[in-house]
Amino acid sequence: MPVPTLTWENDALRLIDQTSLPEAYQFIVCRDVKAVAEAIVNLRVRGAPAIGVAAAYGVVIAAQEAIAQNADFDAHVAKSIQKLAQTRPTAVNLFWALERQEEVVAEAAGRSPAEKRDLLLKEAQEIFEDDKRICRQIGRHGAELLSSRSTVLTHCNAGGLATADYGTALAVVYAAVEAGKQVAVYADETRPLLQGSRLTAWELNQSGVDVTVICDSMAAAVLRDKNIDSVVVGADRIAKNGDVANKIGTYGLALLAHAHQVPFYVAAPLSTIDMKRASGVQIPIEERATEEITRGMGRQTAPNGIQVYNPAFDVTPNHLVTAIITEKGVAKGNYAEAFARWFE
Amino acid sequence: MPVPTLTWENDALRLIDQTSLPEAYQFIVCRDVKAVAEAIVNLRVRGAPAIGVAAAYGVVIAAQEAIAQNADFDAHVAKSIQKLAQTRPTAVNLFWALERQEEVVAEAAGRSPAEKRDLLLKEAQEIFEDDKRICRQIGRHGAELLSSRSTVLTHCNAGGLATADYGTALAVVYAAVEAGKQVAVYADETRPLLQGSRLTAWELNQSGVDVTVICDSMAAAVLRDKNIDSVVVGADRIAKNGDVANKIGTYGLALLAHAHQVPFYVAAPLSTIDMKRASGVQIPIEERATEEITRGMGRQTAPNGIQVYNPAFDVTPNHLVTAIITEKGVAKGNYAEAFARWFE
Repeated sequence: MPVPTLTWENDALRLIDQTSLPEAYQFIVCRDVKAVAEAIVNLRVRGAPAIGVAAAYGVVIAAQEAIAQNADFDAHVAKSIQKLAQTRPTAVNLFWALERQEEVVAEAAGRSPAEKRDLLLKEAQEIFEDDKRICRQIGRHGAELLSSRSTVLTHCNAGGLATADYGTALAVVYAAVEAGKQVAVYADETRPLLQGSRLTAWELNQSGVDVTVICDSMAAAVLRDKNIDSVVVGADRIAKNGDVANKIGTYGLALLAHAHQVPFYVAAPLSTIDMKRASGVQIPIEERATEEITRGMGRQTAPNGIQVYNPAFDVTPNHLVTAIITEKGVAKGNYAEAFARWFE
Repeated sequence: MPVPTLTWENDALRLIDQTSLPEAYQFIVCRDVKAVAEAIVNLRVRGAPAIGVAAAYGVVIAAQEAIAQNADFDAHVAKSIQKLAQTRPTAVNLFWALERQEEVVAEAAGRSPAEKRDLLLKEAQEIFEDDKRICRQIGRHGAELLSSRSTVLTHCNAGGLATADYGTALAVVYAAVEAGKQVAVYADETRPLLQGSRLTAWELNQSGVDVTVICDSMAAAVLRDKNIDSVVVGADRIAKNGDVANKIGTYGLALLAHAHQVPFYVAAPLSTIDMKRASGVQIPIEERATEEITRGMGRQTAPNGIQVYNPAFDVTPNHLVTAIITEKGVAKGNYAEAFARWFE
């Protein structure tokens, strides 16, 4: 099931260009910070954990730039970290990974640029390997929530493509299938950028998992008519109280799941939990370009100059979340308490 | 505000080709039954009332064909009615209009083909003019439900383009604006075929009404954050008990409106009410081609051969409908009783 979402090869970051899927399965190689930032801004790499990993490697690339250009190492790296931090505002893993790299630089004061670069690479590799391990733990914990025959509805892509290689929400599916359970998935296509139909359907299909694509507007009918056992989604940032910021449409889906008495699960690593935000209202929500809606898939689909509202995320209040699945285990309600315990 | 959705000119039916909007505003002329059926199947003309009017004119065209071909008049017309009835299964106005034309033919037994054709044209014109009048009555009744400053969320297109010229759900908006009220509209883009962004945004924009396009998945966030005063939608068929079949996504939107305590209004002519169906479960729901989802807007947006579920409509149970607005007035709950009174 693993997908080589991102790999470090020959001192460069190799990424699946996710904007080309499913038409083409191709890679881009980022050799400078600008290319890494561009890849994050334009969603060639996306998904909160994958963005974190990509940014960590981006700092290694910044270190290599500083060395090659004979620039002030710490200043160039700090500037690059700032640049990478400005790519996207909502996924907290981005800031978490950059802070880890900042600490590496701070702790390596006095060492040579080459040594610092090696330490940054070591840290990035650790973040990468941690993500792989964490995703498998999330999968194991989450799979226990699925019965031996289960139909799951998911939104956006919280799969291998959104992480180092195994996913968060889809890790639950992959782990359940590996444990011998029969799992079928309905995937919301997830407008405007169709990560569900382009990416989730693609990677589940590649892995031989039974997947059916629907439009986002069909979720309510599917919840009523198709015996959905659970909704499982990822998260871009989780507040201290368990409010969940995730792809736009998640909040509506949580309400629909609630109305149909279907459990609503959020699967995410601890790095997604932002203990500095007391609740979801404090999470910044990115608004993206109108063209994503009006010219999203080639054709013009709205009149010229029309007003558009295009938030990339929404916040689901904790009371609509049946459980949050992390590498540390499963919390069912009372999230503040569980998080405090996990972060001890 | 009127839009010339369909007109009868030189013994032919002229339609706005709605599949070309908003890129091109152009017309097609249907001179044979085949062209009328093709236009309905491929949604060049759509919207329950407009389909009814188009089908009524289609029978006139069938009569003209019979005369031109010197065919058995009644047999050719009956065959054509059958052909038109098979174009789309959900909108009841189609069957209602065809039944009216069948009665015209039955009552004209013994008359000449030319006389019969003239009677069919008279009936079609009457259906057309009735629709114009009825839409304005719906607008007047519905506008009373909107306060002097109102923000309305709508789904799909129940506007001038879905009727002879003034709409049902959008008639409520147009009539409120004409009565001097300040109305802003959020329009769900309405996947898969984007009647909201392509058609509703286009016609409201043409009429100078403040309109903002959103993806369907944004409706929940908009209901929570944008002070929506009411949701107003049309209907393709309403059962005797007030269950409403309408564009896929309507049921979910009704649940979301309910969760946010926002009134959910359905605006439709009496011809949409099917007194032969006790409840919504008896309404046939059309499933359409997978390509509408996987290749809807030019680009391939899902992997080859992927499974897709594509129902064109869903059924909203009556308890989620705050009011049904018709040309006879507004029913708030207890729909069976109101309908029985209106149909007396």
